[in-house]
Amino acid sequence: MAERSLLNQLIDALRCLPGVGPKSAQRIAFHLLERDRDGGARLARVMAEAMTRIQRCQRCRTLTENDLCGICASSKRETGTICVVEQPSEVVAIEQATDYRGLYFVLGGRLSPLDGIGPSDLGLDILERRLGEESLAEVILAISPTVEGGATAQFIADRAAHHGVKVSRIAHGVPLGGELEYLDGGTLALAFAGRRDL
Amino acid sequence: MAERSLLNQLIDALRCLPGVGPKSAQRIAFHLLERDRDGGARLARVMAEAMTRIQRCQRCRTLTENDLCGICASSKRETGTICVVEQPSEVVAIEQATDYRGLYFVLGGRLSPLDGIGPSDLGLDILERRLGEESLAEVILAISPTVEGGATAQFIADRAAHHGVKVSRIAHGVPLGGELEYLDGGTLALAFAGRRDL
Repeated sequence: MAERSLLNQLIDALRCLPGVGPKSAQRIAFHLLERDRDGGARLARVMAEAMTRIQRCQRCRTLTENDLCGICASSKRETGTICVVEQPSEVVAIEQATDYRGLYFVLGGRLSPLDGIGPSDLGLDILERRLGEESLAEVILAISPTVEGGATAQFIADRAAHHGVKVSRIAHGVPLGGELEYLDGGTLALAFAGRRDL
Repeated sequence: MAERSLLNQLIDALRCLPGVGPKSAQRIAFHLLERDRDGGARLARVMAEAMTRIQRCQRCRTLTENDLCGICASSKRETGTICVVEQPSEVVAIEQATDYRGLYFVLGGRLSPLDGIGPSDLGLDILERRLGEESLAEVILAISPTVEGGATAQFIADRAAHHGVKVSRIAHGVPLGGELEYLDGGTLALAFAGRRDL
């Protein structure tokens, strides 16, 4: 046994999954080997293909295995609105929870000069081109209300204003069923600042 | 988009992992695609190989990619003792926690006539052959003290006695640091029945 056993290699490799430590990795490995070889083989096949073939949509930068993602390629979306989010997972969340039927743009992060993340790293040159070329009515910003998120939102708002496109921001405040007592101070302050007349 | 996107196929396939629901599967997929493609590609490669190549050791029935597992193939083990366990994961646990240097035998379950699990399903014919062929001093049973586990232990003890091999059972009782108050009744009863003189 000069080299590590295949079982130990599998346990090691499983630790790339988020939140999986040595014990969980071992449990997963034995579960797949003893109870679900077919599922494990299918997962291995799909994962290998996904890791090599999935890249960014050329138009909105979300994850897809095609040149254009399903939303950008669809003829049924309202092309007058772009919702700007930070991560591809947020596109999925918005699609599942809301009846928004417009387009998206995925930044992949926030402007952060200290970390060397500038406008082109977030594809803001692509967004600017879209602001100029597409006949847009509104850009909706769904960016986290942090310092860096705020700077990113301001940057986009400036560019949109330059092209004469209206900009809005999704509301931040108390979540449904959230108890004021247990809410963080930042959210509570945002909820007060963003209060609306009844 | 006639067929499902590769991303959705990956999220679906990830659900074969134990304890992973739709939300976790999505989180894992985005984590791998955005932060650890190399780890994901390596996992896919190792998993594909493990699912096809790992099978049972011909001598002790634990999981291995070779004809004999590392323990059975080693020249450094004490060949006079066999520890009988139910699952391959228990071999790993005993190796990590104890200084046992003997051999193993993995049943893969317990005798359960109602579920159609008989001696040959647990490889007990292979174990019997080893009892006859190898010069064994002791068989240590590390089988759970349930009704079915008890029946399995009794079956093995009978066969070992037939071949003149001594049989022992690992101790069941109060775990280290376990509080009597919160211990289940079965364990407490076992601990009393198995008390030893000081």
